Amino acid sequence: MTVFCWPARVYWEDTDGGGIVYYANYLRFLERARTEWLRALGYSQRALAQEAGVLFAVTSISVQYRRPARLDDELVVTCNPSLGGPATVRFEQQIHRGGIPRAAAGEELLVEADVRVACLDARTLRPKRLPEFLVNALSVKERS
Amino acid sequence: MTVFCWPARVYWEDTDGGGIVYYANYLRFLERARTEWLRALGYSQRALAQEAGVLFAVTSISVQYRRPARLDDELVVTCNPSLGGPATVRFEQQIHRGGIPRAAAGEELLVEADVRVACLDARTLRPKRLPEFLVNALSVKERS
Amino acid sequence: MTVFCWPARVYWEDTDGGGIVYYANYLRFLERARTEWLRALGYSQRALAQEAGVLFAVTSISVQYRRPARLDDELVVTCNPSLGGPATVRFEQQIHRGGIPRAAAGEELLVEADVRVACLDARTLRPKRLPEFLVNALSVKERS
Amino acid sequence: MTVFCWPARVYWEDTDGGGIVYYANYLRFLERARTEWLRALGYSQRALAQEAGVLFAVTSISVQYRRPARLDDELVVTCNPSLGGPATVRFEQQIHRGGIPRAAAGEELLVEADVRVACLDARTLRPKRLPEFLVNALSVKERS
Repeated sequence: MTVFCWPARVYWEDTDGGGIVYYANYLRFLERARTEWLRALGYSQRALAQEAGVLFAVTSISVQYRRPARLDDELVVTCNPSLGGPATVRFEQQIHRGGIPRAAAGEELLVEADVRVACLDARTLRPKRLPEFLVNALSVKERS
Repeated sequence: MTVFCWPARVYWEDTDGGGIVYYANYLRFLERARTEWLRALGYSQRALAQEAGVLFAVTSISVQYRRPARLDDELVVTCNPSLGGPATVRFEQQIHRGGIPRAAAGEELLVEADVRVACLDARTLRPKRLPEFLVNALSVKERS
Repeated sequence: MTVFCWPARVYWEDTDGGGIVYYANYLRFLERARTEWLRALGYSQRALAQEAGVLFAVTSISVQYRRPARLDDELVVTCNPSLGGPATVRFEQQIHRGGIPRAAAGEELLVEADVRVACLDARTLRPKRLPEFLVNALSVKERS
Repeated sequence: MTVFCWPARVYWEDTDGGGIVYYANYLRFLERARTEWLRALGYSQRALAQEAGVLFAVTSISVQYRRPARLDDELVVTCNPSLGGPATVRFEQQIHRGGIPRAAAGEELLVEADVRVACLDARTLRPKRLPEFLVNALSVKERS
């Protein structure tokens, strides 16, 4: 089984006066990877909101900051999703420094995160069962 | 006539790896002052959107960066609005370093900006005449 | 014993297209409160870096998102620090909606966070014992 | 002569509660394109700071917001640099919606910007002559 990977580059906007990426900004990288994983399944979040009436909201996140990323670094963000309940997806994610080959080698782990995302009704903002395509995608993944 | 002033503090989130405030982040300070000027007139933007069906959108901005702001700096953001047309407010704004007295003395000017904001219909996003309270506020200001 | 509180206002910059505060941006509010707690002890982070050669870096964070904050909301961010080790401060933090009285009543809890911050040597970026004033402040707090 | 183009995708982090990209965040897209133009010449900003002792700082920006970008939009950011003086580069930039072919056709122009960037000594933060490779790159460009 392969883990979904998405590249990111560190720009000035991401860094802070300490010369490293600001701690909140890693959460932006993490979310880009989750969004691109969904897009790779064929679904954009805008379409899901408008057509399926479904929004996703992070309900909890736990982040370990191992080493800092710096300006111009190339990062690889991984995204390993699983079913977390009828209305919840759980994402185990990592951010590595370096091109995709280096990340595969497990070198230079910068950040680890465990993220729980709830599926909400776009109108009422109440929890809503995951769309079938997501349940299927996550179930297939677990069997493989 | 007094100019509307709003304080801001520089936090890590605002700085970049150069040790100074990231150039886009001054625009956040500028907007806080415009929003607070409106609130001082008695109107929140959320209420205006929901009750008067009115949104504001920046249509152009011109910014001169004179000196950089740094971590922990106290800033004062000024906001001098005027009528820019039937559906437009123009804001001349400045950011100074230091407490309000120092700003009044014209010392330590960091940023100057000229901002044009259009009034839009919240549903159609088309230009819409400024609400009467705003026209009145801006006209009274011009006469004083 | 009273908990340190710091107010925050939600501006456009903090919200996302879902109409609520973007999940990473609560971490900015959390950090402002930690920085202001330190300042209330008499220390700015810039001075600590330049004079004491000390930097702080978040090493882990765990966040529970209970309810969303919206544009124009007034928030109160609390900051309850304790000794987490010779080079670590632990902060239990909460974000409530509403003015300080409402927060004290425990209503409208939006976000809970558990944050660990390491003290680093500003030159080498290696862990460094907490400055004495911090150890004292945290110990006094624990005895009270 | 071809203009340098750099793609960008709109994520949740870029949008605000109005459902469109927050006005300050376009400046992040603009900067990524300037940084990547420099990288395409063979220079990273971190290397320039550390090896050539040179930093770049925006001294002024003028932005026209024509149409809003929305979540999931694919953008193309152009970057047309020229010599603005011995220590200044001027960048004319545009942001279009849609893939590169559409941008070339001039459709869906969202944002236009005129940006002046000063070359500074990384230690003193005083203006410094542009490095020769930049003067050459910009002169060749003007002759072509």
